[in-house]
Amino acid sequence: MANWEQNVRKVTPYVPGEQPAQSGIIKLNTNENPYPPAPGVAKALQELEAERLRLYPDPTASELTKALAARYGVNENQVFVGVGSDDVLALAFLTFFNGAEPILFPDITYSFYEVWANLYRIPYRCPPLDEHFCIRKEDYCQACGGIVLANPNAPTGLAADLSVIEEIVRSNPKVIVIVDEAYIDFGGTSAVSLIPSYENLLVVQTFSKSRSMAGMRIGYALGQPALIRYLQDVKYSFNSYTMDLSALKLGAAALADEAYFQQTLEKIIGTRERVKGALQELGFVCLDSQSNFIFAAHPVFSAAELFEALKRQQIYVRHFDRPRISDYLRITVGTEEEMERLLSFLRQLVQR
Amino acid sequence: MANWEQNVRKVTPYVPGEQPAQSGIIKLNTNENPYPPAPGVAKALQELEAERLRLYPDPTASELTKALAARYGVNENQVFVGVGSDDVLALAFLTFFNGAEPILFPDITYSFYEVWANLYRIPYRCPPLDEHFCIRKEDYCQACGGIVLANPNAPTGLAADLSVIEEIVRSNPKVIVIVDEAYIDFGGTSAVSLIPSYENLLVVQTFSKSRSMAGMRIGYALGQPALIRYLQDVKYSFNSYTMDLSALKLGAAALADEAYFQQTLEKIIGTRERVKGALQELGFVCLDSQSNFIFAAHPVFSAAELFEALKRQQIYVRHFDRPRISDYLRITVGTEEEMERLLSFLRQLVQR
Repeated sequence: MANWEQNVRKVTPYVPGEQPAQSGIIKLNTNENPYPPAPGVAKALQELEAERLRLYPDPTASELTKALAARYGVNENQVFVGVGSDDVLALAFLTFFNGAEPILFPDITYSFYEVWANLYRIPYRCPPLDEHFCIRKEDYCQACGGIVLANPNAPTGLAADLSVIEEIVRSNPKVIVIVDEAYIDFGGTSAVSLIPSYENLLVVQTFSKSRSMAGMRIGYALGQPALIRYLQDVKYSFNSYTMDLSALKLGAAALADEAYFQQTLEKIIGTRERVKGALQELGFVCLDSQSNFIFAAHPVFSAAELFEALKRQQIYVRHFDRPRISDYLRITVGTEEEMERLLSFLRQLVQR
Repeated sequence: MANWEQNVRKVTPYVPGEQPAQSGIIKLNTNENPYPPAPGVAKALQELEAERLRLYPDPTASELTKALAARYGVNENQVFVGVGSDDVLALAFLTFFNGAEPILFPDITYSFYEVWANLYRIPYRCPPLDEHFCIRKEDYCQACGGIVLANPNAPTGLAADLSVIEEIVRSNPKVIVIVDEAYIDFGGTSAVSLIPSYENLLVVQTFSKSRSMAGMRIGYALGQPALIRYLQDVKYSFNSYTMDLSALKLGAAALADEAYFQQTLEKIIGTRERVKGALQELGFVCLDSQSNFIFAAHPVFSAAELFEALKRQQIYVRHFDRPRISDYLRITVGTEEEMERLLSFLRQLVQR
């Protein structure tokens, strides 16, 4: 180890799903939306002026913030935006999980939570999900330094009832409860309606899934003004201008088309349910996904084996080689055509 | 204080220069480039496909990284990119300034250094610049937890000789020395040439000033592969995808036009020198700026008074009400026309 290495923060980074560069593959591994962003986004892109790029973007991100406030029926001072929900969550961890007590999140959930906790040296505990992969609310109704829950959860796709979320928030007035709703538009009931009642609730959502804009890196948090102010203070202590001009403009444009948004959701949910049925016919066990992916295991074929077989067919899904879930594949819901290709290959494989 | 507030990280955020929304103003307060980005950037913008935004961007940012490596004559594994140099610097602070000894930076410099140190609870000391606003290298040749130096410095615009930077880097093999070269293209000598010789040197630059792309949020660090790897690990522990698709594409396009880049620099440097001369004729004391701004004080008119008078004329400059520099205005070098308006107003004011 070189001399200078002793002062280096050593971490084990999050490993995102593969982003294969070749074309012609069926990419069902990172929960992207198979449909393009709203048509207004293409128009806003056309209208972007290169000349304007010489200036800093609006540090308050007001155009995007206003549009989000209007969409979710909150005030502008209840909205925080960032470079994808990962940026928002990372800053929220840094801001709110600053005590000595461990924070809580389930043993099976978005694996970035553990990475952020390690990065910022935040103590944490991971109560195990029950045997049906559901959270046990009593695990979260006890002294702790804070709570983060993905709802619907990843990679299971299961949603907790809003009453469960509410009880957890209500039981923890001394700490912040973050509800990560990256997949909420595909099912489940959002905790946004609880915001007026609980000053310790922060709801985080993203444009990457339901709004087809993973490439633009837009996430946001909604909460009471005091929470948002603390988050802003930390953001302005990190980077004054996190959102570039294109993200601000294109994000606002995406929000303007509610009808397109709803149509896209309907298509994906329809495909999800159809594919789930088809997988079950092939013997797969599928959890009750409220997200844009299906978490499925086969009693005969191992997930590792299926993952590799699919990859040879240029079909990329995700496999987590971790305790309790190593039997499952996480399959993003693509277009009807993509899912038909997946199913027809699996039919061959399973039924031969 | 609410119950939950005890766990909140309290910080005093950085305050960026005003970003007035109205048009018709002369904006010389945040060191933006008065000229548009290279013509190839507008073309790349035209070619961006909204459809592609549904997918995550390349997490390795390889198109932009390759272009930077080629431009600076380093290997790809010596390049790190981020959301403006503020993002890069913040992550570098978090990564490399992780010891118990205080880090060092001058009393007068980019004020974000202190903010990051406070955000991450990094101990620091600020050796005072000498009476000419120059760093005293002996202050930096002693045990410490790391060093960050802006070269040219902000808000003075003064550049240290490369030999001074090299001696500081050489004297500190146990810690990382970050050289923040946000303004290096306008003067001074870059420390990039020292990278092969020093494994503890990290050089940070930005597209916001010399490349006219503040609105796109692109910064980068260059260093030996081991340093870049540590920085990547922390980045991948924070946000897998910090750079959106447009930043990657437009950034690469900006790098492709070296001739335009050089022409723009020449224009700005030419204007700077002419304006400096004109200000001196009006009695201003101007430091020897190697940047795209002029740091100037008048023996009769206070900086606060000049700042307000200019603002009433819709001319925005920057005034830092801080010890040792409260007599100075920081004036960004705009177009010839903008600077002529500034000068003609100051002539009236000073000579009446």
